Amino acid sequence: MYRVDLNSDLGESFGRYTIGSDDRIIPLITSANVACGFHASDPVVMDKTLAMAAEAGIRVGAHPGYPDLMGFGRRNMSVTPGEAKAYTLYQLGALEAFARAHGLKLQHVKPHGALYNMAAKDYELSRAICSAVREFDGSLIVLALSGGELARAAQDMGLRTALEVFADRGYEEDGSLVDRRKEGAMVTDEEEAISRVIRMVKEKKVRAVTGKDIPIRADSVCVHGDGEKALAFVEKIRRALKEEGVEICPLDEIV
Amino acid sequence: MYRVDLNSDLGESFGRYTIGSDDRIIPLITSANVACGFHASDPVVMDKTLAMAAEAGIRVGAHPGYPDLMGFGRRNMSVTPGEAKAYTLYQLGALEAFARAHGLKLQHVKPHGALYNMAAKDYELSRAICSAVREFDGSLIVLALSGGELARAAQDMGLRTALEVFADRGYEEDGSLVDRRKEGAMVTDEEEAISRVIRMVKEKKVRAVTGKDIPIRADSVCVHGDGEKALAFVEKIRRALKEEGVEICPLDEIV
Amino acid sequence: MYRVDLNSDLGESFGRYTIGSDDRIIPLITSANVACGFHASDPVVMDKTLAMAAEAGIRVGAHPGYPDLMGFGRRNMSVTPGEAKAYTLYQLGALEAFARAHGLKLQHVKPHGALYNMAAKDYELSRAICSAVREFDGSLIVLALSGGELARAAQDMGLRTALEVFADRGYEEDGSLVDRRKEGAMVTDEEEAISRVIRMVKEKKVRAVTGKDIPIRADSVCVHGDGEKALAFVEKIRRALKEEGVEICPLDEIV
Amino acid sequence: MYRVDLNSDLGESFGRYTIGSDDRIIPLITSANVACGFHASDPVVMDKTLAMAAEAGIRVGAHPGYPDLMGFGRRNMSVTPGEAKAYTLYQLGALEAFARAHGLKLQHVKPHGALYNMAAKDYELSRAICSAVREFDGSLIVLALSGGELARAAQDMGLRTALEVFADRGYEEDGSLVDRRKEGAMVTDEEEAISRVIRMVKEKKVRAVTGKDIPIRADSVCVHGDGEKALAFVEKIRRALKEEGVEICPLDEIV
Repeated sequence: MYRVDLNSDLGESFGRYTIGSDDRIIPLITSANVACGFHASDPVVMDKTLAMAAEAGIRVGAHPGYPDLMGFGRRNMSVTPGEAKAYTLYQLGALEAFARAHGLKLQHVKPHGALYNMAAKDYELSRAICSAVREFDGSLIVLALSGGELARAAQDMGLRTALEVFADRGYEEDGSLVDRRKEGAMVTDEEEAISRVIRMVKEKKVRAVTGKDIPIRADSVCVHGDGEKALAFVEKIRRALKEEGVEICPLDEIV
Repeated sequence: MYRVDLNSDLGESFGRYTIGSDDRIIPLITSANVACGFHASDPVVMDKTLAMAAEAGIRVGAHPGYPDLMGFGRRNMSVTPGEAKAYTLYQLGALEAFARAHGLKLQHVKPHGALYNMAAKDYELSRAICSAVREFDGSLIVLALSGGELARAAQDMGLRTALEVFADRGYEEDGSLVDRRKEGAMVTDEEEAISRVIRMVKEKKVRAVTGKDIPIRADSVCVHGDGEKALAFVEKIRRALKEEGVEICPLDEIV
Repeated sequence: MYRVDLNSDLGESFGRYTIGSDDRIIPLITSANVACGFHASDPVVMDKTLAMAAEAGIRVGAHPGYPDLMGFGRRNMSVTPGEAKAYTLYQLGALEAFARAHGLKLQHVKPHGALYNMAAKDYELSRAICSAVREFDGSLIVLALSGGELARAAQDMGLRTALEVFADRGYEEDGSLVDRRKEGAMVTDEEEAISRVIRMVKEKKVRAVTGKDIPIRADSVCVHGDGEKALAFVEKIRRALKEEGVEICPLDEIV
Repeated sequence: MYRVDLNSDLGESFGRYTIGSDDRIIPLITSANVACGFHASDPVVMDKTLAMAAEAGIRVGAHPGYPDLMGFGRRNMSVTPGEAKAYTLYQLGALEAFARAHGLKLQHVKPHGALYNMAAKDYELSRAICSAVREFDGSLIVLALSGGELARAAQDMGLRTALEVFADRGYEEDGSLVDRRKEGAMVTDEEEAISRVIRMVKEKKVRAVTGKDIPIRADSVCVHGDGEKALAFVEKIRRALKEEGVEICPLDEIV
């Protein structure tokens, strides 16, 4: 029996600014990564987002980012491990307050944007993030790039770890994502992207950009809800997974 | 047997900026109101502050404020009840994450600055703050101005409520503080200030600015740790309370 | 010969967040109030906004607001006159840097949101804003609510002053806007709204909510570019003004 | 006739937070690098700082930094050249508004912290900063690390360029500063530090960490005003320079 989670970022609006189609992506996913007020969101948005998640019955996790609203948390920042740990603790706590108010329990933690990318390559930074998770709630699942340093740190520290894959990204032979500036970074053909996802889930393999097959573990597939095309693509993935006998279920039923 | 708590604001530094003498006021108080990153503080400061509090064995509470770092949370802002509730939840959660990391439990909540002053006069705003407290952790004590609307809302909502008094402020006949722009707002004579505190604690009375005695309840005295003079004054109050047979103990042993 | 300016807020996006249809409202207006990074916008957005304005040949002015991005500058804040002056100077300077980079000269200043509303009722606050304008560039036009305190302060201080009216708002007998919570606050019938604008421009009169005609001066009409309906309404106003022989031209050709 | 400027950072307080001893360093320097509200300062602080500078008759320049108040602008951020240019323009304009209000003219621009360090090694980033300077006011002096990329970009773009040296830092053979993590990074002996400054100014040479003499140009010496020791050291440098016949005068009389 094959199972996989579908995760997407949620609750990234801010004040009078709206981003994403949260109401439309929610029915299509099983786990939501909820922004915590650093790279996006604010307390009022977090309140509304968790109300929607509770209503829909999906799992929620924290999506902590760098304190860079202007750059949407997508710019590398040279923070120390101590800062990264404190920033993660702060955001975990802030989000949990709303989870509690809406009768939810946090399921997982997935760093956002530049913090995610830097952690994937930096073991020390990853350990700092994982220390925050462990001190906050050792039962939380760390959702990390398959093959990256965050996954390694989380496993080394005894945390529940889930690995995610991307339908639309190319992989290097070592399991890392192909740099966006290089050829093969993006898988633009939708049918091919879906076939790759199916294969990653069922065969635990993916063809690297070099042409060689590499092993990969897909506990979750990262999907996007911004725009009609993205939403339609998520529906296609869902249909294909079901046709292939893959059950779509939340992370905490998988790891 | 008389008992009273001494509370002070703590952890209001930010980034490279330092305010207060946290290490010197900590040994003199029983409850600390810890800034949560809106009007002051940041995650690294919160981490250090709770480490110090844990080391010293004092109780900690959340000190949520308006999102106005530039104005140190001292400027009135016309936020809606929904915003006030969400801001309080966010800050409660953020602080609790650090409490948990340092093996502490939050004891109380005391709004900061303009939020404190506005809540003292606005029942609806006070209910919004108390809703956040109740949904977050119904066992938290609300520390409020003796005679103000926050105290009333907290009691109406069934929350544990502690009332605080000020050694250096004058009171109106209705128990509210004399407006700072009016005569009699400040009690400048230290001996008189201390006598008033003793009387508030032991006789549950204070002489209002009009000359009339009014009833008052003093579960806690608010003290300050900024500067030599303030610190010396706290030491005087402590000595006087002890000489008068008043035990200084944390809020949760009083209410 | 009748003339009137059409002004609209512009450049209120922030980081990855987009608000408004700047490209669609620009061809319909003669003066743009450009956000300066406090209530909305950031340096990159300001750069793009002034590039668009320069390309289109419309006039630009500063739209300073309170430092409250989370509340979009729409929440009253109790700032001191000194703070209001410094905030205005800061934002004027920041915007002028981009104007200069794009070969433009600032034409006017119009406070945003809560700062606009509070200034309209507070002469001292209005003088603080006008002091900033005068010290920065005494040739700038202050664009203010017809009949409000900002207009009075600007005139008292010898600044060029332009008065704006609203097509969709009701007026009290004293020329102030009917409070949004009261009946008659909004003029919902489009034809009536347009007739009122024409009359304000040509006859310098408007029917107050009490039924009595009052004098009013309309140098500019405030219009909005958010949404299809708002854009269509601006086009209707433009057509109606032209049919009535009213020339639509920028503020600095009027006052 | 030898001449050199002494520059120091100024106006880095924020809201209720105070940093530095601005009143004590001002009489000792000829050029101040004034924070512009991104890494430090706020509009009220900027207003006060330029009032003090005007009173003292020292020259002022802009000290733009990354939008990272929490990190005091000392953390590397991967901003694009377009962002760096816009951030610089914004801060230049904001500061100039206060200069104008106090009858001052900006003399120079010196990036702060991580922006300074990154620019010194990144020609493209340096060109972005210099583009902002050129479009804002082509007569401004760019104050840059002797031997760094910002100096090179400023010269290539035809901007007036001043080079600064550090009394307390070691130099590599290529003229760059020795990395703080390496031996020889700091010159801890005060007498040696002063001798090195004198030699840099008079002989245009400095002994690199390798022992080899290298050419260097010292238009300005960067000094610090935080703490008694730093202030005393500045006074020593001043005395030594005067005894050696070196005139201390502002940048715009040197380059």
